[in-house]
Amino acid sequence: MSQLFMFEKPLGMRDTLPELFEMKDKVRTSIEDGMKQWGYQFIETPALEYFETVGSASAIPDMQLFKLLDQQGHTLVLRPDMTAPIARVAASKLLDDDMPLRLAYAANVYRAQQREGGRPAEFEQIGVECIGDETISADGEVIALLISVLEDTGLSDFQLSVGHISFVRELFLQILGTDERAESLMKFLYEKNYVGYREHVKALSLSSIDKQRLLDFLKLRGGREVIEKALSLIENGTGAEAVAQLSQLWNIIADFGMADNIKFDLTLVSHMSYYTGIVFEVYAGQVGFPIGNGGRYDRLLRKFGKSSGATGFAIRLDNLLEALGPIESNEPIHCILFSGERRKEAYELAKTKRQSGLKVVLQDINGVKNVDAYTNKYNETSFLLGNAGKESPHE
Amino acid sequence: MSQLFMFEKPLGMRDTLPELFEMKDKVRTSIEDGMKQWGYQFIETPALEYFETVGSASAIPDMQLFKLLDQQGHTLVLRPDMTAPIARVAASKLLDDDMPLRLAYAANVYRAQQREGGRPAEFEQIGVECIGDETISADGEVIALLISVLEDTGLSDFQLSVGHISFVRELFLQILGTDERAESLMKFLYEKNYVGYREHVKALSLSSIDKQRLLDFLKLRGGREVIEKALSLIENGTGAEAVAQLSQLWNIIADFGMADNIKFDLTLVSHMSYYTGIVFEVYAGQVGFPIGNGGRYDRLLRKFGKSSGATGFAIRLDNLLEALGPIESNEPIHCILFSGERRKEAYELAKTKRQSGLKVVLQDINGVKNVDAYTNKYNETSFLLGNAGKESPHE
Repeated sequence: MSQLFMFEKPLGMRDTLPELFEMKDKVRTSIEDGMKQWGYQFIETPALEYFETVGSASAIPDMQLFKLLDQQGHTLVLRPDMTAPIARVAASKLLDDDMPLRLAYAANVYRAQQREGGRPAEFEQIGVECIGDETISADGEVIALLISVLEDTGLSDFQLSVGHISFVRELFLQILGTDERAESLMKFLYEKNYVGYREHVKALSLSSIDKQRLLDFLKLRGGREVIEKALSLIENGTGAEAVAQLSQLWNIIADFGMADNIKFDLTLVSHMSYYTGIVFEVYAGQVGFPIGNGGRYDRLLRKFGKSSGATGFAIRLDNLLEALGPIESNEPIHCILFSGERRKEAYELAKTKRQSGLKVVLQDINGVKNVDAYTNKYNETSFLLGNAGKESPHE
Repeated sequence: MSQLFMFEKPLGMRDTLPELFEMKDKVRTSIEDGMKQWGYQFIETPALEYFETVGSASAIPDMQLFKLLDQQGHTLVLRPDMTAPIARVAASKLLDDDMPLRLAYAANVYRAQQREGGRPAEFEQIGVECIGDETISADGEVIALLISVLEDTGLSDFQLSVGHISFVRELFLQILGTDERAESLMKFLYEKNYVGYREHVKALSLSSIDKQRLLDFLKLRGGREVIEKALSLIENGTGAEAVAQLSQLWNIIADFGMADNIKFDLTLVSHMSYYTGIVFEVYAGQVGFPIGNGGRYDRLLRKFGKSSGATGFAIRLDNLLEALGPIESNEPIHCILFSGERRKEAYELAKTKRQSGLKVVLQDINGVKNVDAYTNKYNETSFLLGNAGKESPHE
């Protein structure tokens, strides 16, 4: 084990300095305000959970979990997502009669990284969960809310893609016959490796018609017209019901006046294994990772003894900030530099300015090593120095 | 190792449900606004730090640290306080010419608990650090800021006590001769065990004059008059300088117009070993633990290779909320219950109400199991059901 340099931080851990902090804060507040206006209520859950309860329900690979042992010998994990902890809270604390529940959170989640310079090991998610509502109205609402809060942040150039896990599963099962074979093919979709998908399909021992169905499946992307195309590929049953749900969803989003903001992408699957129905993700600008994603997870609450439908989404604040680019957020700070003789006058000036809403730093000149460099940090400095004279403003 | 019930949380870990969350949020925002108005800038540091760097600098007993091993074999800790991480940031990222720095944070910190029903293992601190300023003006500013933000929250009944670590150390050293003997006596002060202190003093082999000095020391509590009494107990040197600093501090706080809010308590010492000068703590109402505490820590930055004075405070949000008691914070939420036929009308009504600043839940009636119980949650419900008719408000 090497000696650590005194400033080092663990792999993937980052500091957020004032400028970035203010941007994050501004964007977070805008999103939170939108969620509250739609009647979602914020909750907080602990950073540490038992692996045996929430940790194992969270669908994040084991090697990405930060684990530790408590003094009773139980394994704890730093929460890798918020959906599983909120499912625990909803199932344990909240009553059936209160359903549907609309809950929201803004929280850091933790995923161990394997190498330096990679992804962050701690990042903030802001999200909602609508719990206990199995209607497509609920799916439509969370998608409309996601579009609404993203627009509120000023994000203009984004694409929200909608798919359906049951459609993919059912189509693959109809053609391939076994879960195992369906899962191997789905792996290419998880990885968005469409070249690999095509090669895998060509190598399968299937009729040319079925091969063509699997290749045509990749084309199920676009607007409302995808519905008809999808129905032509699938037999009646669960898969066709999934398509009917997507059709209903489209009408709901259209009633929200947001049909222009979504497109279908039936090849969309998620690495979060708990999703069961409609799923979606948002990309923006040139950012290589999703800004947000979500979907329906009707079976997760069963792990906590409750049979309730649920849907929700999470926004990755770091990716969203990257897509937004620089934001003007710094409010000016005024500095009052004083010497002891005029201390009281300085305090009173600061009080008056603060009461009028300004940000004011009060600084004893004896505490400053380099006055020029120091005052350069501020938009404006007032010097209240010495016995005589008055305030001499200095821009 | 016993089987865990599916809802269990690790020892000392708690959920924060909507009602408490809103109170926390309201109080936190009020405090943050005050800190920003005084020119403090917020930063964020990682939840995990290396034990070897920040963990060992943090002055929290080892048994209270949550520790884990990373894949390189280094020991990580969940941050037990924010002062040490901010010292790391200030020493590594920030330039001498920028000093003094005014930094702020609102962050959860982690301290492992030994038994059920005890203190929380995760709690939120909101604090500031003024770094690179060795004047008493800086000590006075952070105390005035603490008083100001507490008053802004509506807290009326609180006591801020101010002491000085150097005074206690010097007095005890003058009388007892060795660090070891001084430390044993100081232990009673840490524990606020004044009965034990008196018994310990009586059992010491000292002149009756020196015993009386140590007993009189316990009376050094009160207003400005404590200054004279303290000077009469101490010989010239470091201890008398400490008293001169307290006298200067009193004048500064008086210039802020806040002298009524503080009292001296020279018996005040802190369990945070990094404090070096003026220290303070706030109690309020019947709450048994401090609402906030702070002080000067001129040697902590040396652990990160920088020789800079610093002072700051941290507010315990949970203790403050307990002192404040119930806060009216819930803004009313309006509910629109709709059926499919009137969905679009419901969406438009919601949009209008939200644009006027109201919080509005949109709920498809097909997603509700118990309509009466559900609508009871809301201050007002509009029913947009069926083909005919208009909105029927229902209080």
